[in-house]
Amino acid sequence: MVLNTTDLATAEPRGVWEACRNGEWDRPTPGVCQENVQANLVVLPLSDAFDFLRFCQRNPKPCPLIEVTDAGDPEPKLTAAGADLRTDLPRYRVYRRDEEVEERTEIRDLWRDDFVAFLLGCSYSFEYALLAAGIPLRHIEAGENVAMYRTNIRCISAGKFAGPMVVSMRPIPARLVSHAVEVTARLPQVHGAPVHVGAPEALGITDLKRPDWDGMTEVRPDEVPVFWACGVTPQAVALEAKPERMITHSPGHMFVTELTNKELTNR
Amino acid sequence: MVLNTTDLATAEPRGVWEACRNGEWDRPTPGVCQENVQANLVVLPLSDAFDFLRFCQRNPKPCPLIEVTDAGDPEPKLTAAGADLRTDLPRYRVYRRDEEVEERTEIRDLWRDDFVAFLLGCSYSFEYALLAAGIPLRHIEAGENVAMYRTNIRCISAGKFAGPMVVSMRPIPARLVSHAVEVTARLPQVHGAPVHVGAPEALGITDLKRPDWDGMTEVRPDEVPVFWACGVTPQAVALEAKPERMITHSPGHMFVTELTNKELTNR
Repeated sequence: MVLNTTDLATAEPRGVWEACRNGEWDRPTPGVCQENVQANLVVLPLSDAFDFLRFCQRNPKPCPLIEVTDAGDPEPKLTAAGADLRTDLPRYRVYRRDEEVEERTEIRDLWRDDFVAFLLGCSYSFEYALLAAGIPLRHIEAGENVAMYRTNIRCISAGKFAGPMVVSMRPIPARLVSHAVEVTARLPQVHGAPVHVGAPEALGITDLKRPDWDGMTEVRPDEVPVFWACGVTPQAVALEAKPERMITHSPGHMFVTELTNKELTNR
Repeated sequence: MVLNTTDLATAEPRGVWEACRNGEWDRPTPGVCQENVQANLVVLPLSDAFDFLRFCQRNPKPCPLIEVTDAGDPEPKLTAAGADLRTDLPRYRVYRRDEEVEERTEIRDLWRDDFVAFLLGCSYSFEYALLAAGIPLRHIEAGENVAMYRTNIRCISAGKFAGPMVVSMRPIPARLVSHAVEVTARLPQVHGAPVHVGAPEALGITDLKRPDWDGMTEVRPDEVPVFWACGVTPQAVALEAKPERMITHSPGHMFVTELTNKELTNR
């Protein structure tokens, strides 16, 4: 059976986990389980996990922790009981020190007793909240990626984990910027309020048209570029640290939790 | 030189650290550096630190993390640069597995390269905010401790760390309960909004007059007992876990950070 996003838009998370596990779904997750929080995945060996957890604690805007599993346990019991993080994402990336990156649809045979999984908040939930509040998002209307940039904001380092904050930029109509701040400030678990409004040069971004990760860069005269801390930050930082082994979701192929977008504001 | 609380009420945190270090101050810290955030201290060996950090991440209301130091480093660089956690608190408690508790005024000779220090938010800052918002706090007016109770709320466990949530109770005039919730909800780093309002029996508290930790229990007819998650929780849980070694502040003898109460709402 071949599924499409429409099939999964109103599915239960469990249905998406099973579709991933059975090989029926290996595509990006925007639009899947629209009511549910999706998460970035970072898997690291225990020897790196304490430093990485401290890094996330010190940099909550780019690295909002949704759940951290016990070593060796592939089940995120608190936000997705019954799921298996080795099989229930559509696509993974496996990084080995100084080797090629491998793309996979499951990581069962790679799993180890000392692996710790980090689930980190993702912007899909705050975009859902922005759209629900009547704030238009051009990259979604255009079906493009959001533009992302490395900035001159240094994250606070922890052990080997160090590096700049990555931000995503959304052009917001000037009369709605204040409202966009209010709406996202209520959602600290998915990056929270913007880190910067206007003036890209103050972030060290010399040309807004040339993002470090491709995406929609058009900002119209009545709009302001608004910058949110981005979940690419912890992955970029973890990669720089060259851990002996790291596994992440493949970009855009997130893990679907049982946490709902509505619950985020109540936590 | 003998100092009193009035001498230190408007001191810089640095002055309090030095007074502790020089043996000029070994008394409780309420009223000291009134503008600054005070913190609970828990020091654990690296072998227990990752589990304890996960415990705090899973239970942010009783265990709000202010800072976690790098292993072996006694300086909390992010919230109190220049301080030394081995000497700059007025009093410490040293716990060894199955041995007597030792009370100390410094722990320099006990410090180890594998020690990690956790600074956790404390209720003094939210009490400051409540008083500033015109909400009376009887235990402070009476110069007594706040009453604390073990509850039937189970914390989410992590490794060996498991146990019930401890709450503190403050009687709040019924017409001000809503305002007290609003004021403290803005301060998630110092326990945030109450976990429970009224109905102590629903928390498993059978007799409000008999707290598990002594303090002011009087609730008048026009008042409601309001319960906040309490920073005693992580200490009680850590003690239950019987770590090989644990060092904490002595109750009431907190660490003074350079973070100000005003900054807490801006983080």
